[in-house]
Amino acid sequence: MNAPTSAQTIFLDQLMGELGPVSVLAAADADLVRHGHVPDPTQAVDRTPLAVAYPRSTADVSTILRLCHQHHIAVTPQGGLTGMVGGAIPGAGGLILSLERMREIEEVDVAAATMTVQAGVPLQAVQERAEACDLFFPLDLGARGSCMIGGNIATNAGGNRVLRYGMMRELVLGLEVVLADGTIVTSLNKMLKNNAGYDWKHLFIGSEGTLGITTRAVLRLYPKPRTTNVALCGLATFDDVLAFLKEARSMLGGDLSAFEVMWKEFYEVAVQIADGPPPLEAGYPFYVLIEALGSDEQDDGARFERLLERFITSKVVKDAVVAQSAREVEGLWAIRDSSGELDRVFGEAVNFDVSIPTGNIAAFADDCRSRLREALGGGEALVFGHIADSNLHLSCKGPDGIARSGLIDATVYAAVRDWGGSISAEHGIGVGKRDYLPYSRTPSEIDLMWKIKHSLDPTGILNPGKVLPAQRSSDS
Amino acid sequence: MNAPTSAQTIFLDQLMGELGPVSVLAAADADLVRHGHVPDPTQAVDRTPLAVAYPRSTADVSTILRLCHQHHIAVTPQGGLTGMVGGAIPGAGGLILSLERMREIEEVDVAAATMTVQAGVPLQAVQERAEACDLFFPLDLGARGSCMIGGNIATNAGGNRVLRYGMMRELVLGLEVVLADGTIVTSLNKMLKNNAGYDWKHLFIGSEGTLGITTRAVLRLYPKPRTTNVALCGLATFDDVLAFLKEARSMLGGDLSAFEVMWKEFYEVAVQIADGPPPLEAGYPFYVLIEALGSDEQDDGARFERLLERFITSKVVKDAVVAQSAREVEGLWAIRDSSGELDRVFGEAVNFDVSIPTGNIAAFADDCRSRLREALGGGEALVFGHIADSNLHLSCKGPDGIARSGLIDATVYAAVRDWGGSISAEHGIGVGKRDYLPYSRTPSEIDLMWKIKHSLDPTGILNPGKVLPAQRSSDS
Repeated sequence: MNAPTSAQTIFLDQLMGELGPVSVLAAADADLVRHGHVPDPTQAVDRTPLAVAYPRSTADVSTILRLCHQHHIAVTPQGGLTGMVGGAIPGAGGLILSLERMREIEEVDVAAATMTVQAGVPLQAVQERAEACDLFFPLDLGARGSCMIGGNIATNAGGNRVLRYGMMRELVLGLEVVLADGTIVTSLNKMLKNNAGYDWKHLFIGSEGTLGITTRAVLRLYPKPRTTNVALCGLATFDDVLAFLKEARSMLGGDLSAFEVMWKEFYEVAVQIADGPPPLEAGYPFYVLIEALGSDEQDDGARFERLLERFITSKVVKDAVVAQSAREVEGLWAIRDSSGELDRVFGEAVNFDVSIPTGNIAAFADDCRSRLREALGGGEALVFGHIADSNLHLSCKGPDGIARSGLIDATVYAAVRDWGGSISAEHGIGVGKRDYLPYSRTPSEIDLMWKIKHSLDPTGILNPGKVLPAQRSSDS
Repeated sequence: MNAPTSAQTIFLDQLMGELGPVSVLAAADADLVRHGHVPDPTQAVDRTPLAVAYPRSTADVSTILRLCHQHHIAVTPQGGLTGMVGGAIPGAGGLILSLERMREIEEVDVAAATMTVQAGVPLQAVQERAEACDLFFPLDLGARGSCMIGGNIATNAGGNRVLRYGMMRELVLGLEVVLADGTIVTSLNKMLKNNAGYDWKHLFIGSEGTLGITTRAVLRLYPKPRTTNVALCGLATFDDVLAFLKEARSMLGGDLSAFEVMWKEFYEVAVQIADGPPPLEAGYPFYVLIEALGSDEQDDGARFERLLERFITSKVVKDAVVAQSAREVEGLWAIRDSSGELDRVFGEAVNFDVSIPTGNIAAFADDCRSRLREALGGGEALVFGHIADSNLHLSCKGPDGIARSGLIDATVYAAVRDWGGSISAEHGIGVGKRDYLPYSRTPSEIDLMWKIKHSLDPTGILNPGKVLPAQRSSDS
């Protein structure tokens, strides 16, 4: 980037004066490069930030935002840098606010089943502390070791256990945020029921740092499950998949924690990535990984096997393998989790995270594939997802790979729009999906989002360019 | 009220012209009186509205709000008129907007497990339609026959099954609202995961008609539970109650659906109200009604009895009675549900709905009672609640009954404030608790609520005087 302007220099001097030099990094060293070089779907040429600030407390965050507000300096909050849509990409000449030094677990309240944490605590640290208290924090993602609670909140993270425990939104009881002008708003609520006025925390959860910056949160903990039962099943039709899901929800009740569907092309690639021989033979049109997290060591295993037997007898499930040990549980999950490494076998692809109303998922997948073939003159798509949550993932490439990734994007998102789906199930919008937001939101919804944005961040310093597409001219 | 002013007459003429006379009631007949005479905690002298409008569609609601916005006419939305905090009390000379003619169930989507309804559909109609589709809508309240979905959404209703299924907020997947200026914002989302931009529906859920008016919603349905197991238990200490809760959550997992605690004074009154002999003898310091809604007809009963046996053996539970039939289930619930008729035995009392962090509930109850005795020179309080949800109810009276109800309010809410609780767990704020909101919310939280209010309802026509206490002078 260019040398700082004199206005930027005045801002930096003031920031270092108030925060102390150890919390601000303005020289172009390796760390600045690390923060600046987040993978960038927009491929902008210059993303070099002015500086990085490392607050150690809520008061520090307030100081930073107050000064940015005064000096009109754009602020990009950053956590573990594991986001999928470019929400943490800095703007040239703006300030990066990294939460990575705010990593204190402040309290576990066993009676209330809550944990109070700073925003920079990694997800895995929360999981481990809960476990040490004989409790359970159910959010889980592949990036658990790096991603931070603040980022999980900013993106309303999902993952594999949403069916049973909800998304991050449902796991946040209390929140502290700093508004654009530096105002601290604190509600470290531990209570499940609290209808005292507007439940404002929901405005910030999932807003990707564009409305305020989360500094602390009270998380909801659960009892630790005592049993895990997992099976992998082969099925012939999507109607059979839906019938299996309906009955599994009914028979397993609150214990059903995952119902992952893999289309056969995905399975055939996945078994080449996971170690060992395939747990089920290839060739079934659909594979379902079903998991129940239970509490009854005596009966849960038998109940799970009864469910499967019933479906095998009725031929809805053609074949099934039930994990008999923790190692086998891991082995079955490894098939599904190979989604992070598909490119090793499938080659580079464009990946999608979308939602489609559950009953339409198979028809959507077929339609989407045929649209891709038509648009690209060929190509392939691997399809898999958390279908009980309506959430589908696709890995797509044309006959020439990802050469025409813009066309692949446009084709898939048009299909999502036409099937009444959401262009983002769990990854958020960031910059990567911003221009497609009108495919899943009406103009009046986007106007409402802008109204909220203007009200909370009137000068537009918070993570500019993220989430919201350009405003309609009638409202500007 | 006085005769309409000429400005009001112009507004009314225009409203009738656009909506048709059959949808507007301006004469002072019996129906107007019914809408106007909601029980009023503020005991204002004149609450006679200008008129009542009965929209039949979202477009009607939009027309009404557009005209009210233009003419600066205050609007009070009304549903089933079963609220507890005066949220539906009209202002003199304002318009009542009754949703009672918008009572269409538009769709049940079995694969997605959703129901799309208009705001005026009664809760019980939703429950019954779900049941007819072999599905289950878990929200349940005593007022189920009268209260409407729109009101359940406006107040973020709670009830007895929050522990397992969440509050109304967790049961709303999609929402359509009309903003103060008549703008219709529609997102009839059916998907569990949808991170496409701000999840704006949460702003309206629980805002008691002060930010917009709900016209339609997509509700989340669940599989119908197949088993119900209920027991009533006597315990000696609150520590035992907490230990019992922790183990019940762990052993019953996702099936635990209610954990209702009754202090002994409540139990002694309740058994006089419910029919038949008391199911457990009087004298235990605490009574717990525990319920599991399960899915396994074969094993659930045995699992439930094992849990109880373990606690009886360890003497944490001193005595227990397990319901052996649907009629006995009803009989045990009748004890807890007698809370609606306590005054028959206890006499008239001031009733509270508050939340306290679970671990502090017993200490709070003791402290609250001793503060009441000191303030009133005597008196009694019955205490009961959904303690796993942090939710406590109290019925309080002084030696002279409710003669000094203002003092009783002030005393209880001061105790709630000092114990870090919420002045409203599930009933909302309305006008009844508005002036106490600062006891549970900081000034910066209330400022944030006002900022949101000003942004969405700049002329302040939506349910004025509800929820928010007066604004700080620095922001006006």
